Amino acid sequence: MSPPERENWTRGIIECLEGPGGEVSARQRTADLARTYLSLAREQRRQFLTLLAEDFGPQPKAVEDAVARFQQASNPEERVAAEGYLREALHPRRRRLLTQFNGVEGGVKFLVDLRADLLPIASRSAALAGLDEDLKEILISWLDFGFLELTRLTWRSPAVLLEKLIAYEAVHAITSWDDLRNRLDSDRRCYALFHPSMPNEPLSFVEVALCDGIARSVQTLLDEDAPEGDPQRADTAVFYSISSPQSGLQGISFGEYLIKRAVGALRGDLPRLRHFATLSPVPGFRVWLESRMNRPDEATTTGPAVVPGLPALLEDRERIKTTGDDSAVATSLLSLCARYFAERRADGQPIDPVARFHLRNGARLDRINWQGDISVKGLRQSLGMMVNYRYDLDEIDANHESYAKERCLAVSPAVRRLMGRAGASLDAIGDVVAADSPSETRTSTGMREQ
Amino acid sequence: MSPPERENWTRGIIECLEGPGGEVSARQRTADLARTYLSLAREQRRQFLTLLAEDFGPQPKAVEDAVARFQQASNPEERVAAEGYLREALHPRRRRLLTQFNGVEGGVKFLVDLRADLLPIASRSAALAGLDEDLKEILISWLDFGFLELTRLTWRSPAVLLEKLIAYEAVHAITSWDDLRNRLDSDRRCYALFHPSMPNEPLSFVEVALCDGIARSVQTLLDEDAPEGDPQRADTAVFYSISSPQSGLQGISFGEYLIKRAVGALRGDLPRLRHFATLSPVPGFRVWLESRMNRPDEATTTGPAVVPGLPALLEDRERIKTTGDDSAVATSLLSLCARYFAERRADGQPIDPVARFHLRNGARLDRINWQGDISVKGLRQSLGMMVNYRYDLDEIDANHESYAKERCLAVSPAVRRLMGRAGASLDAIGDVVAADSPSETRTSTGMREQ
Amino acid sequence: MSPPERENWTRGIIECLEGPGGEVSARQRTADLARTYLSLAREQRRQFLTLLAEDFGPQPKAVEDAVARFQQASNPEERVAAEGYLREALHPRRRRLLTQFNGVEGGVKFLVDLRADLLPIASRSAALAGLDEDLKEILISWLDFGFLELTRLTWRSPAVLLEKLIAYEAVHAITSWDDLRNRLDSDRRCYALFHPSMPNEPLSFVEVALCDGIARSVQTLLDEDAPEGDPQRADTAVFYSISSPQSGLQGISFGEYLIKRAVGALRGDLPRLRHFATLSPVPGFRVWLESRMNRPDEATTTGPAVVPGLPALLEDRERIKTTGDDSAVATSLLSLCARYFAERRADGQPIDPVARFHLRNGARLDRINWQGDISVKGLRQSLGMMVNYRYDLDEIDANHESYAKERCLAVSPAVRRLMGRAGASLDAIGDVVAADSPSETRTSTGMREQ
Amino acid sequence: MSPPERENWTRGIIECLEGPGGEVSARQRTADLARTYLSLAREQRRQFLTLLAEDFGPQPKAVEDAVARFQQASNPEERVAAEGYLREALHPRRRRLLTQFNGVEGGVKFLVDLRADLLPIASRSAALAGLDEDLKEILISWLDFGFLELTRLTWRSPAVLLEKLIAYEAVHAITSWDDLRNRLDSDRRCYALFHPSMPNEPLSFVEVALCDGIARSVQTLLDEDAPEGDPQRADTAVFYSISSPQSGLQGISFGEYLIKRAVGALRGDLPRLRHFATLSPVPGFRVWLESRMNRPDEATTTGPAVVPGLPALLEDRERIKTTGDDSAVATSLLSLCARYFAERRADGQPIDPVARFHLRNGARLDRINWQGDISVKGLRQSLGMMVNYRYDLDEIDANHESYAKERCLAVSPAVRRLMGRAGASLDAIGDVVAADSPSETRTSTGMREQ
Repeated sequence: MSPPERENWTRGIIECLEGPGGEVSARQRTADLARTYLSLAREQRRQFLTLLAEDFGPQPKAVEDAVARFQQASNPEERVAAEGYLREALHPRRRRLLTQFNGVEGGVKFLVDLRADLLPIASRSAALAGLDEDLKEILISWLDFGFLELTRLTWRSPAVLLEKLIAYEAVHAITSWDDLRNRLDSDRRCYALFHPSMPNEPLSFVEVALCDGIARSVQTLLDEDAPEGDPQRADTAVFYSISSPQSGLQGISFGEYLIKRAVGALRGDLPRLRHFATLSPVPGFRVWLESRMNRPDEATTTGPAVVPGLPALLEDRERIKTTGDDSAVATSLLSLCARYFAERRADGQPIDPVARFHLRNGARLDRINWQGDISVKGLRQSLGMMVNYRYDLDEIDANHESYAKERCLAVSPAVRRLMGRAGASLDAIGDVVAADSPSETRTSTGMREQ
Repeated sequence: MSPPERENWTRGIIECLEGPGGEVSARQRTADLARTYLSLAREQRRQFLTLLAEDFGPQPKAVEDAVARFQQASNPEERVAAEGYLREALHPRRRRLLTQFNGVEGGVKFLVDLRADLLPIASRSAALAGLDEDLKEILISWLDFGFLELTRLTWRSPAVLLEKLIAYEAVHAITSWDDLRNRLDSDRRCYALFHPSMPNEPLSFVEVALCDGIARSVQTLLDEDAPEGDPQRADTAVFYSISSPQSGLQGISFGEYLIKRAVGALRGDLPRLRHFATLSPVPGFRVWLESRMNRPDEATTTGPAVVPGLPALLEDRERIKTTGDDSAVATSLLSLCARYFAERRADGQPIDPVARFHLRNGARLDRINWQGDISVKGLRQSLGMMVNYRYDLDEIDANHESYAKERCLAVSPAVRRLMGRAGASLDAIGDVVAADSPSETRTSTGMREQ
Repeated sequence: MSPPERENWTRGIIECLEGPGGEVSARQRTADLARTYLSLAREQRRQFLTLLAEDFGPQPKAVEDAVARFQQASNPEERVAAEGYLREALHPRRRRLLTQFNGVEGGVKFLVDLRADLLPIASRSAALAGLDEDLKEILISWLDFGFLELTRLTWRSPAVLLEKLIAYEAVHAITSWDDLRNRLDSDRRCYALFHPSMPNEPLSFVEVALCDGIARSVQTLLDEDAPEGDPQRADTAVFYSISSPQSGLQGISFGEYLIKRAVGALRGDLPRLRHFATLSPVPGFRVWLESRMNRPDEATTTGPAVVPGLPALLEDRERIKTTGDDSAVATSLLSLCARYFAERRADGQPIDPVARFHLRNGARLDRINWQGDISVKGLRQSLGMMVNYRYDLDEIDANHESYAKERCLAVSPAVRRLMGRAGASLDAIGDVVAADSPSETRTSTGMREQ
Repeated sequence: MSPPERENWTRGIIECLEGPGGEVSARQRTADLARTYLSLAREQRRQFLTLLAEDFGPQPKAVEDAVARFQQASNPEERVAAEGYLREALHPRRRRLLTQFNGVEGGVKFLVDLRADLLPIASRSAALAGLDEDLKEILISWLDFGFLELTRLTWRSPAVLLEKLIAYEAVHAITSWDDLRNRLDSDRRCYALFHPSMPNEPLSFVEVALCDGIARSVQTLLDEDAPEGDPQRADTAVFYSISSPQSGLQGISFGEYLIKRAVGALRGDLPRLRHFATLSPVPGFRVWLESRMNRPDEATTTGPAVVPGLPALLEDRERIKTTGDDSAVATSLLSLCARYFAERRADGQPIDPVARFHLRNGARLDRINWQGDISVKGLRQSLGMMVNYRYDLDEIDANHESYAKERCLAVSPAVRRLMGRAGASLDAIGDVVAADSPSETRTSTGMREQ
C-alpha cells in the first residue's frame, strides 16, 4: 500500500469512527467503506486488514493506565471501576468499526467473509491475531445458539439456497440437481442452521437417511435408482454428511448443536425412530497405516507389517471392491482400523479428527464397515472403510463427560474386541467404554460396559 | 436467602456452567433455571441477582495474574497474548450464564426483563453494578442496530401487539381501542423497532401525523372526530409521540435510530413530504418557572417574578385554555419558555431532557406553541406549552456536530428572538444557531444563521 | 331512475359486455362500474339492480329457439348440441357481467354485498328473483367448500379481523375488547371459514370452550373473571356460538362444514377431547308457550295452561334467576320445552330453527338446561333455557340420514322422558331416536335407542 | 370394463352423490373415489369417464318435462320458474360429482388433469363431449381471472416450481439448471399466473428479456455467456417465450391476460420501459412455402417458385446461417414470409397460429427478422425467421377491435411494404393496418396508417 493510499484508508476509517452526525450517519459511512472493501483485490484487502489491525488496536498507553489504576484500587467500588476501564482499554477502536459493519445489507455475512479473508494471514503478526480475536468474539456473540434457526430443507426450498448445498457439500459431493433431489426425497432429511441475518447461507447442514437399521455403505445410500423407503416405517436415522461451509467461521463449532437439534426434530416428526447414528469417513487411516507398514516394532502377528495381501491391496486399491469382508486381509484391516482409533494425540484425544468430533459430542464408536465407501476418495483415504458413531440419547451426556474429563472413549463391545485383537494394549490406551445396550455396567477394571 | 437456599442456587448456577454434556445440555439446564427465576417473587429475584453478582464475578486472583502477565510482556506477541488473558479474566462466569439464557424461548426478552429487575438495585453494590455492566454490554451487542427491523404498525397488525401500544404509550395515553384505531388511520403512521427474537415487543415506537404544515396542538391531532386527511397531499410529518417501553433497556438508546429510519420510510412512501418535525412536551418548564418566581434576581422587566397575571394563572391553570396567545401573559410565558431552553446543566447541555435528546440528534428547536397541550398533564408540566423540533435533513449532521463538540444549540430565528426578549444573555448561554431556511450563514458574532 | 339515467346505465353495462379490447379491458370497465355502484344510495342501487335484472336476463327468443331445436333433435349428437344451446340461452348476459365484477379488488366480497342489496327486493318480480338465482349460483360455485380455509383466530390475529368478530357475533354479543380476549384465551378456541379472496371477512365462525363435561350455562362460560382452564386436560369442546355474518350469503350454508372441520381441528390439536356438543339457544320457546297458554285443549295436567306459577313467572321473568331447577314450575317448563322440540312444521321438521340446523347435521338433542342463559335476551326468548346438541362422531352420519329421509329426531333418553312426561304423543310426533350411549338399538316400535 | 366392475363404479359414484351424512361425508367419499381414479391405468380411466358421461348425464325425461313446462308458462313468474327447471335438468349429476372432487387435496389440479385424460376421447361420443362441456364450464368458473395471481419467478423460487419451468417450457427448451438461472438473471423476468389452489402449477408463464431496442435473434437472447444488462437502463421488454403447460386447460386462454398483467408489472417496476414486444416463431412458414414451390400460379417474379437459390437453401438449411440478410434470397424470403402472414383461413384470420393469438390481443406485426432463430428447430419450421409483435398500449384496444370485427391486421409500414413487394394483392387480403407511430391516420383506401 502506497503511503497516500494508506493515508486515504486511515482517513476513511477515522471518519467512520468519529465523523459528524450520530450513529445513523456513521453506519452509512461504514457501509460505503464495506462496499469499497468488497471491490478490492486480495492483496489490497490484506493491506487494509493489516492497517486496521495495527493502527486501530488497543492503545498501549490506555491499557497501561488502566492497569495502573487497577493496581491502585483500594476497595470494591474502585476495583469494579478499574475493571471497567481495563475492559474499555482492551476494546479497541477496530472493534467498533467491525460492529458498525453490521449496518451493511447482509452485514453478518460481510463479517464472516471478512474473517475468511483474514484467517490465512492471522498468524503473521500479533496485531492480526488480535484483530482475529476481536472478530471471532463478535461473531460468537452474534451467532449465539439462541439466535439460530433449524430449518428443514426440501425440494420446495428456494433454488438460490439449494444451489449452496451443491456448492458446499464437503463430504460426499453432490454431482447434479438430480443427485440433490434424490437427497431430499421423502426418505431423506436435510437440516440446516441459519442466522436470521444470513437467510440463504447455511451455517452448517446435515444430510440424513431414514433406514431400517444402521446403514453400512454410502454408495447404497446415495444410489439414485434405489426405491424410496417409507419414512414412517424407518427405525433409524443415519447422518451421512455434515458440512460447515462458512470458512470465516472456523473455530466456531455448530456441528454438535446441529446434530442434537436435528435429532429433536426427527423424533418430533417420526416417533418410530429409535436409533440415531452417523455413517462417517476415517480420513487418516491409510496414511497412518502406511507409516506403520515398515516399522520393525509392528512386525507382530497383528501388526500392519505382516498382514498378508496388504501390500498388493495398497498397490491396487480397486481390489478392495471385490474382497469379501470375511477374507483374511479384511479381518486384519478392520482390527487395524480399530487400533487406529485407539491412537491418541498428546492431549489424549484420538488422532482421527472425525472421531474427536463425535466422541466429544457424546456419541460412541459403534461399528467399522468394510467397503463402506468404495469411491476413489473413500479407497484413497481409508481403504474403503467407514464407521458408525451412535448417538444414544441416554448416554450422550455421560459419554461426553467421561471424554471431556478422562479422555475415556465410548466404543461398542464389537469395536473393543477388534481393538484387542489388533494388539492394542487397552491399558495403555486408557479407559475404553464398551456398550452393547443402553443399560450401563461399570466393570471392575474401571471400564464401563454399556 | 437462607444458607440452604443460597447453596441450592449456587449449585444450580454451577451446574448450568459446568454440568455434564455439551452446550446443548447446558442450555437446557439454564432454561430450567430461567423458568424457576420467573416463578420467584421480587425479593427472591433480588437475592438471586445479588448471589450471581457477588459469587460469579471476575475472580480477583485471575485478574491480578493477568495484570502481572501483561506487565512482564516483553514483545508484541506476548503483549497480545496477555491482553487476551486480561480480557478472559475480566469476562466473568456470570456473563457466560447470562449468555446461556438466550437458549430460553424468548431469551432476549428474558434478559431485558432481568435487567429491569436488576436496575433498581444496581447501585447498591459494586458487584451489582458490575453485573449490570455485563448485562448491558450483552444487550448492546445483541440489539445492535444492524439486527433491528423497522415495522409499520397498522390496524392489520396482531391485537397482541397493538395492545402493547396501548399499554406502553408514554407521552399521550391511548385511552381505548377506538383511540388506537384513530392513531392508525390512513393519515397517521406508527413505526416501531423490533428485534427478531422479540417479535411482539417493540423496542421503541413513534406515532406520526401527516399534515399540511407543522401541527401546533396535540388535542387537534388526537381528535377522534376530525376528518381523515389525505396522506398523499400532506407536506409535513409530525412525530407527536416517541416511547421506549422496555425498562430493561434503560441507557441503550433507540430513539435517534427510530426517528431517522422512520423519516426514510416516510420519504419512500410519500414523496411529497418535505418537512419532518416533532410536537414535543416541555417536561420541566413549570417547575423551573416556579423556582424562579420568588428570586430577587429575577425581578427584572422580563423575569418571571414580575409577569402580570402569572400568579393567578399558576393558581388556576385551567384559565390557560381561555387565554389568547396574544395576551400579555402568553407573550411573557413564551419568552420565559425560550429562556428555559437556554438554561444549561454543568455539562453544557440544556436542562430540558427532551431538548437534549432532539438537539443531540441534530434537530433544531423551531417553535414554541401556546396551548399546545391543554390536557391536565400538559397544563401541569408546561402550562400547556409544546414545542416543535425540526429535522431538516440538510442540517442534521452539522447540528449534531456543533452540539456534540461545542454545545451549540440549533434554534430558529423566532425562538432566538424570544430568548433575547426574555433577557437571556445570549453570550452567556453560548453559541446559538438560528435558522430560517436550509441555507446557512455564519454571522460575524460567531453564530450560525441557517 | 330518469330515462337519461337509465340509458346511461344501460350504455355502461353494454360497454362492459361488448366494448372494444379483450377481456382485460372489459374487466377494467367493469371495475369502474363497480366503483360507481358503490357510490350510489340505496334506492339508486335498487334501480340499477332492477335494470340489470329486467334488461339483461335470458332473451325469450333465444330460449324459445333453443327449445325448438331441442325438440327437433333426432340423435344423441344433436341432442347434446341442443342442450348446449339451451344452456347458453339460459345463461343471460347479466350473469357475464356479474362474473366480470370479480376483476375488482375484493370482487367476491363485492358480489356478496351486491346480493345483500338485492335480497330485500328479490321477491318483487320474477326478473329480480332470476337475477338472485344467477348471483347465488355464481357464489355457490366460487365459494365451494374445496376453496375454503379453516383458520383459528387468536389474540395474535389482526385487529382488523378481530373487530369483525365483535361486530358480527350474533348469538352472545361481545361487549368489549376485553370480552373478546377472554373468548380467545388458552381454554377457548375460535375457528372461522375464509375464502382466499376475502381474507378479512369470515364466512362463518364458531366459538368453542374447552371444559370438563358439557357446559350448562352460558353465563358461566362467558365469565371474564373465571380462572383459565387447562386445555390439555379438557375432555369436552362446547360450541357456544355460531355466526354467519355475511347477509349476502343467505341460503348458502357453511355451518355444518364449519362445525365438522372445527371438530377435526380440535381432535388433531387436543387428542384428549372426547365429547363435542353445543350450548344453544331455544329461540321460539316463549312465543310458542304463550300461544298455548290460553288454549282449552292444553288444559290437561301437563299442558301449559295449568302449570302453577307460570303466569307469575311470565309476568316477571327475572324470577327465573332465583327459581331452582327442582321446583315444580321448572320441572314443568323443562317438559314443555321438550315438547316444543317435538312440534313439527308441515314438512316434518321441528319448528325450532336451531334444532333443524343441528339435527340435520346429525347431532342429537342431548339435554335441556334450566337457567342456561339468564341474560335479558335469554329470559325473553326461552325463559332462560338452553340446550345441548351433541355431535357424536359415530352417529352423525346415521342421524343425518334418519333425519333427512324419515324426519326422525335424534334425542337422548332424558329428553325423550321429558317429552313423554309433557304429554306429547310420541306416536303422533313420529319416530324419536333416544340415545344413552354410542351403541345403537332399533326398538320394536320402530324407534332407535342409541 | 367388466359388468361387475361397471356396477362397482356405478355404486361408488352413487354413494358419492346420495350416500348418508351431509356434504362433509360426501366429500370424503368423493376424495376416496379420486384416489382410486388416480391409481387406474389409462384405459380404465377412459372407461370410468365414459361411464360417468353416459350414465350420469342429463336425464332426457327431466329435460323434456322442463321443456314442456317452459312451453306452458303463461306469465313471467312461471317462465322464470320454468327456466329454473330447465337449468336444473341440464345440470346433470356428473357435474355435481365433478364439483365434489374439489374436496380432494389439490382438487382443482385433479380436475385439470381429469380433463387432460378426457380430451383425447372427448370427440368419441356426444356423451363424452357433454362431460367435457361440464368440466370446462366448471374450470372456467373456478379459474376466473379475478382469482389468478401474477407472480414473478426468480432464482429464489422453490426448486419444485422451477423444475416445472424446465419441464413445461414449450417454445425454446430449457436445457439445464444453468440455462434456467440465466433466464432468471437480473436483466430477465419470468412471470407466471397461478390459482391459489394450485400453488406450484403455473397456468401460463412468460419469459421476458430487458433490452435496449427490440431483440432480433433468440440465440443472442439465450447466450449464457453474454454479459448481464442493467435492467434499470433497458427501454424495451421482449417477450420471447409464452407457455401454457396445463393440457387439461386447452381451450381456456390465459395468454392475453398474462401478457397484459406482465406489462403492468414491468411498467410498475421499471418506469423507463417504453416498448413491449415479442420475439415469436413462425411455425408454419416452411411448410406453406414448400407447398407453394411447385405451383404454376406462383411462377411470378416474386413467387416462391422462382426465387434464385431457394431450392439449394431448402436442401441444406444450415446455409442460412451464413447467408446475409441483404442477399437476394434473404430479401425474397422476407417478402414471402410477409405474404405468408397475409394468408387467411376461411374465417378471415391468418393461417399462422401465433399471429392469430397476438393480433387478436391487439398487438401489431412489427418486423420480420432474418436469422432470428438458427437452431435446428428454427431452421426447420421457418428457415430461421422470427417476428416481433409489438404491444403498443395506446393501440391495443383499437387493434383488437378492428381485428375482432373486421379481421383487419395491424402491421407496421415495413411489413406492409414487404407484403406488397411479395405480390400479395392487398385488396384481396382485406384491410391492412400499417403503423409507424402511435398517431393513427385512416387512409383513403380504407386502411389505417398508424
